[in-house]
Amino acid sequence: MSEPINLQIRLTERPNGKLSPKHFATSQSEIPPVEDGKLLVRTVLLSLDAANRAWMQGPTYRRAVKPGDVMHGYGLGEVMASGSSAFAAGDIVACETGWQNYSLVDAGEAVKQIDHRPLSHLLSVLGIAGKTAYHGLLGIGQPQPGETVVVSAAAGSVGVYVGQLAQMRGARAVGIAGGREKCDWLTGTLGFDAAIDYKSADMLAELKAHCPKGIDVYFDNVGGPVLEAVLFNMAMGGRVVCCGAVSQYDTGDMASPRGIPGLIVVKRLRMEGFIVLDERHDDQRASADLLAWSTSGKLRVVDTILDGLESAPGGLIGLLAGENMGKWLVQVGADPQGSS
Amino acid sequence: MSEPINLQIRLTERPNGKLSPKHFATSQSEIPPVEDGKLLVRTVLLSLDAANRAWMQGPTYRRAVKPGDVMHGYGLGEVMASGSSAFAAGDIVACETGWQNYSLVDAGEAVKQIDHRPLSHLLSVLGIAGKTAYHGLLGIGQPQPGETVVVSAAAGSVGVYVGQLAQMRGARAVGIAGGREKCDWLTGTLGFDAAIDYKSADMLAELKAHCPKGIDVYFDNVGGPVLEAVLFNMAMGGRVVCCGAVSQYDTGDMASPRGIPGLIVVKRLRMEGFIVLDERHDDQRASADLLAWSTSGKLRVVDTILDGLESAPGGLIGLLAGENMGKWLVQVGADPQGSS
Repeated sequence: MSEPINLQIRLTERPNGKLSPKHFATSQSEIPPVEDGKLLVRTVLLSLDAANRAWMQGPTYRRAVKPGDVMHGYGLGEVMASGSSAFAAGDIVACETGWQNYSLVDAGEAVKQIDHRPLSHLLSVLGIAGKTAYHGLLGIGQPQPGETVVVSAAAGSVGVYVGQLAQMRGARAVGIAGGREKCDWLTGTLGFDAAIDYKSADMLAELKAHCPKGIDVYFDNVGGPVLEAVLFNMAMGGRVVCCGAVSQYDTGDMASPRGIPGLIVVKRLRMEGFIVLDERHDDQRASADLLAWSTSGKLRVVDTILDGLESAPGGLIGLLAGENMGKWLVQVGADPQGSS
Repeated sequence: MSEPINLQIRLTERPNGKLSPKHFATSQSEIPPVEDGKLLVRTVLLSLDAANRAWMQGPTYRRAVKPGDVMHGYGLGEVMASGSSAFAAGDIVACETGWQNYSLVDAGEAVKQIDHRPLSHLLSVLGIAGKTAYHGLLGIGQPQPGETVVVSAAAGSVGVYVGQLAQMRGARAVGIAGGREKCDWLTGTLGFDAAIDYKSADMLAELKAHCPKGIDVYFDNVGGPVLEAVLFNMAMGGRVVCCGAVSQYDTGDMASPRGIPGLIVVKRLRMEGFIVLDERHDDQRASADLLAWSTSGKLRVVDTILDGLESAPGGLIGLLAGENMGKWLVQVGADPQGSS
C-alpha cells in the first residue's frame, strides 16, 4: 500500500479567524532521495493537535507554519531509506512528518519507537497527549488525595488522561466539556466524578455545586471565560496548570480572565505555564508509567483514527470545533506489520 | 507625653472609588481597663500600608474594615498594663493597634519586639515591608546572578528592598515608579541599575531598552497595565511574584492584563500569589539576615515618619496616590526611651 507519489497538503494563506478547508490545498511532488544524516520516512499515522492551529499564528515554542509550507505535523512513519547509522530501513520513528506521504527528516530529530501495537498509542497515551497530562498534572499540579481537580477540554486528547490520573492519585476529577453528550460520556464511560457543560446556563453555579470546597488544581486547556470562572472558584493555595488556550488559537483574541492578579494574591494561587517538550528530562519515568498503566487497562485509552491524508484538514477543523472525544489521528499509510 | 484620652479615627463609610478625608471621622473614648489575657497598649508608631485600603473592600486574608470601625492598622506600642504573664508593662510590642492611642489587644496576637532603635526599622526593613521583599523575591522569584529583576512601585516601602536584594544576589535591578523624581532617586540614591517612569510615553519601549534579554523576575506590586507591559517582555521561564495590585485597590477594577494564559504557556512563566503572613515558618532566617544587612548598611533603609495620629488619613491617601518614597509611618505617641 506504500504510495509511489508524494501527496502533500499545504497551507495556502494564514487564517485570520476560523480555520476552513479553503486554507489548504493538495499537491504532489517527487519522493526526495535520501541524503547523508537524513531519513526518508513514509508517513503511517499523523497526530492532530489543537496546537497545529497555534503554529499558524506565528512563532510559538517552535517555528511558525507559513503560507505555501507543507502543513507541519507530528507523526509516525516507517524509515524507507536511512542516511544515518543510528536507523535502519523498517524502523518505526516518531518525527515531524508534515502532512504528506514522504518526508526527508534529520536523523537527529527522529525518535525510534518501541515495538508496540496499536501504533496509535505511541501518539496518544504514550505520546504528547499522555505525557502532557502526566507531567502537567502530576509534576506541576501535584494533586493530593481528597483534593478536587478540574480539567477543561476534558473530553480532549489530554483531558481524558488528566481526569483518570487525578483519580489514580486519590483526587476527585471534575471535567469541563462542551455539550451533554460529552459530559455523559466523561462520567458514564470514563468514570469522572462530575462533568460540567460549559455551554450550559450557569457554569459558575455548577462549579460551586460540584466543587463545594473549591478547586485545588485546575488543568487549563482553554483559557478565556472558563479560566475566569474557575479562578473565582479556586481554593486557597490552588495550582493552575496553564497548558493551552484553545479558545484563543482560533480567534487571535488576547482577552484575559478578570481578577488577575487580585485573585492570585488573595488566594495565593500559582499559575504555571508548561509545554511538554520542556519535560524531556523526566520522560523515561513518564513513559514507563504510562506504558504500564495503559497496557494493564488502569488507564483507558481513547483513540479515533481518521482514514487517509485527505481527511487531515477536516479533522483539524473538527478538532478545533471540539468534535473529538479523545485523540484524533489520521492513517496516512499502512502499518508495515499490516495490522491496519 | 502619654495621652490621658483615647483619640480614635473611624471609617465612616465604605469608599467606592478614591479614598478621601470624608471617609474618616475622629472621636474620643475612654481608655479601656485591662482584662485577663489581654494587654493595654499605648500606640507609639503606626504603619501605613497600601493593603489598608484593600481591607475596606471586603474580606481578604483578614477580616474587612466595616463602616463605624476604628480603622484597622498595625503598629508598635508600649504595654501599659498586662493581663498576661508573657508580657510586662514597658514591653514594646507589634500588634493590631488600630488608628487610636490605646488599644486592648489579645496577648496571643502581640509580638514582643527586640530592643532595637530606631523603632521605625521594626515596622519597615525588619517588619512586613522588608520580609515581603525578602520572602517574595528570594523565596518565590529566586533571582540568579546575571538575571534581570523588575519591580513595580519600586520607590515604595517594599520595592526599595526588592531592588537592593536583587543586586545583592548579583542580578540587575530595574525599578518602575511614577515620575522623574522617583526614578532619579532610585538610580541616584538607591543605586538601581535603571528606573522606568510608568507615566512616560512608551513604557514598552523603555522596558525593552532596559531589559534587552527580557525580564527573568517581575515583582508585581501594582497589577493592571504595568503587569501587562511586563508580561509581554518576560524572558522564557520567567517568574512573576504577585504581591499586590495597588492599581486595583482604589478602583474596584477587575480588569486583567491581556495575554493570559497565552503568554504564560508560550513563555513557560510562573505567576505566584504571595502574602507575607504565609511565610512565618521562615521568619527567623529573614529577620536575622535583614537585621544584619540593615545595621551594616548593606541594605539602605528608607523611612519617613509623619507626626501625630491625625496625619494618618492624609498619609494613607498620599500613599495610595504614590507620593511616598520608602516606608511611611505615623508617630502616634512617644518612644518610652524618649528618642522621638
